[in-house]
Amino acid sequence: MSFRDDGAAALEWAARYLERVGDYPVLAQVQPGDVRSRLPASPPEQGEEFADVLRDLDEILLPGITHWQSPRFFAYFAVSASEPGILAELLAATLNSVAFLWRTSPASTELEALTLDWTAQLLGLPDGWHGHIEDTASTSTIAALAAAREATGRGVVVCSEHAHSSVDKAAKLLGLEVRKVPADAEFRMRVEELDLADAAAVVATVGTTSIASVDPVPAIADACASAGVWLHVDAAYAGSAWVCPELRWSQEGVERADSLVVNAHKWLFTPMDCSLVWSRRPEDLRRAFSLVPEYLRTSDEVDSLSDYGPALGRRFRSLKLWAVLRCYGRAGLQVRIREAVRLAELFEGWVRDEPGWEVCAPRHFSLVCFRREGSDAENEAIVESVNRSGELFLSHTRLDGRYVLRLAVGNERTTEQDVRRAWDALLQA
Amino acid sequence: MSFRDDGAAALEWAARYLERVGDYPVLAQVQPGDVRSRLPASPPEQGEEFADVLRDLDEILLPGITHWQSPRFFAYFAVSASEPGILAELLAATLNSVAFLWRTSPASTELEALTLDWTAQLLGLPDGWHGHIEDTASTSTIAALAAAREATGRGVVVCSEHAHSSVDKAAKLLGLEVRKVPADAEFRMRVEELDLADAAAVVATVGTTSIASVDPVPAIADACASAGVWLHVDAAYAGSAWVCPELRWSQEGVERADSLVVNAHKWLFTPMDCSLVWSRRPEDLRRAFSLVPEYLRTSDEVDSLSDYGPALGRRFRSLKLWAVLRCYGRAGLQVRIREAVRLAELFEGWVRDEPGWEVCAPRHFSLVCFRREGSDAENEAIVESVNRSGELFLSHTRLDGRYVLRLAVGNERTTEQDVRRAWDALLQA
Repeated sequence: MSFRDDGAAALEWAARYLERVGDYPVLAQVQPGDVRSRLPASPPEQGEEFADVLRDLDEILLPGITHWQSPRFFAYFAVSASEPGILAELLAATLNSVAFLWRTSPASTELEALTLDWTAQLLGLPDGWHGHIEDTASTSTIAALAAAREATGRGVVVCSEHAHSSVDKAAKLLGLEVRKVPADAEFRMRVEELDLADAAAVVATVGTTSIASVDPVPAIADACASAGVWLHVDAAYAGSAWVCPELRWSQEGVERADSLVVNAHKWLFTPMDCSLVWSRRPEDLRRAFSLVPEYLRTSDEVDSLSDYGPALGRRFRSLKLWAVLRCYGRAGLQVRIREAVRLAELFEGWVRDEPGWEVCAPRHFSLVCFRREGSDAENEAIVESVNRSGELFLSHTRLDGRYVLRLAVGNERTTEQDVRRAWDALLQA
Repeated sequence: MSFRDDGAAALEWAARYLERVGDYPVLAQVQPGDVRSRLPASPPEQGEEFADVLRDLDEILLPGITHWQSPRFFAYFAVSASEPGILAELLAATLNSVAFLWRTSPASTELEALTLDWTAQLLGLPDGWHGHIEDTASTSTIAALAAAREATGRGVVVCSEHAHSSVDKAAKLLGLEVRKVPADAEFRMRVEELDLADAAAVVATVGTTSIASVDPVPAIADACASAGVWLHVDAAYAGSAWVCPELRWSQEGVERADSLVVNAHKWLFTPMDCSLVWSRRPEDLRRAFSLVPEYLRTSDEVDSLSDYGPALGRRFRSLKLWAVLRCYGRAGLQVRIREAVRLAELFEGWVRDEPGWEVCAPRHFSLVCFRREGSDAENEAIVESVNRSGELFLSHTRLDGRYVLRLAVGNERTTEQDVRRAWDALLQA
């Protein structure tokens, strides 16, 4: 078969998948080992047809897929790979650029800088920040904290008890000690308890993973400025919301950050992986990461984006971000972000109005934290029951020692009817 | 326009690109800033058509692309994104799985384990090693050295002076000291000069970046075993050659490694990015990276592959590797690897036979290091001249203080005629 024929079949598979994704059980209904046991233990000696791959994708893998593209995926942070983003990934794989130096893919390097500038404009960030793309927020945080260590020579990272686990993971990798600051009743870092002794960096979170709470960045920035401490802002989820002016209250103080991460693959409709990092101190990132061996030396006097993070090889990730920003425009992004917030607000209202249920934290952005009266075990049983039904997929967290359900709206295909179906399923469970 | 129509246009773009890629100048013939200056400084307010993206890709980005898919790309290590691999990336982006836990994408987690086992069989690696995928060898090395630090509590990494720069970068990130061991006349680590005091790990290279030399792994493994030092083998490029039994001489001793990296996106026809890591001490990787916050806790008693490396979020990278292994089979991989080696051997012969030219290092695998009589500046001028011509793309290194040209064969579209054209262009330059 030709590339055109195989490609047409793959494209048709993709189109039908996206049309039907709402019909599949959201959480894969398989047991560990089920998928693997249905596949051959050894690779083929002779090549097979691509059609065979598509057939097995359908028959064997599909039951083992948890459908992140489902309109009733409400777990963790719901994401969307938009159609322009998906097709741009086909193009990026076709080009197969490896942009470790400017000359190895000038278009990739320059489009990455441009799309980061475009996104900075959309989000209302300060002019002139240096932007680049990493795979995930975990890596972005590693890059930021390595730069902070380089810039300050100190060995402690300070963050709220609600900071993402990737801060702990990055600190362990970098040999930094983590100092956790307690949170207030609304799950925001208590600045009055901030101890900056030996601190290389503070990680402030805008949109924490558990409850989307927003740390008091202006006060944290004051403290960092007087102590000469690097301020890294983790807005991996909520930063995308800044495309809407009415949600920029959560951006206050971020203009004073030394580095910032926003994941375009979370709420900016870009397929995994595309984590955006900005810094106003790019020279510290370079000092932490730049190494030029002879075989990479060129006469080009241009920055290599591999000098700003851990990896040397880099995919052409900006192509998908560019496709999304162009095909949606500012207006299209705003419509989608606002609809997700509206649906979360609606759901929050239903929970508030329902006897026996409670909202457990102020709703921010598109995340609702809630629970039913009763024990943790009963609430956990509700989550397991609805997830097992395949009707929707929820995750949980623990707040003040209590098991709490999380409903995160973020898939662009989610409608009011989907949220209603989720609520009905919860009421029945 | 619909996804089907836009997709058909994107697919047609990809098909025509692959048909014509040999006609484009291999190295982008643009100046820094050329691409960016032709694009709007700000994103659109209203969404545009995907066709507009494709048009600008053609008219504005394409001249700024260095064509890694060109059959006359001979720089660094030449790579191929095969057709099954490209189409699988379309599918992976469509599914948009984020496999940080088994339940968030059982098929992704299980297919990753399976394809790493399949590849281990193809390469003749020992049974039972734990495999997972990272983005690049840089990250794979970070993972391996973090595990070594965790396992030994020591602070030195030892490698040959020809080890890849990612070892230095990883060591800097991890706060480890690097001790370089001199190489012998054939650019292999001098084991008699190996000093393992305080060593956490030795990185042995099979297929160094400059000259594809092979460190004496059996002797290094002996030394590591008696000193309790972690042995990491970097076979990022050359490991794929082990699919051919006649090239497995370079695998001797690798069966005793604690960890091993082979980049499927280098010479296993898989699009960027797909770096394969195996370890016989996976529990040490877990100890270095595993952290389970409440919001990621589940009742599933299954490994999460995010516990074996720095990143939490993980793309469905195994899908493309699976597609390649199935569509090529062992036989198809062998044919392609052997052809690349044959073409390099042929080129080596031409250089040897041509007065005024010399082969500068023993040819291993598909890489030839050579130069013309004369000064470094003259040789550099030859490289710059042929690269500027667009006819081919070469890179260089420095061996024993001399500037040396490198011709790396690895693109699956490269024919004898392409190598001949490269040699003709060099003779003319």
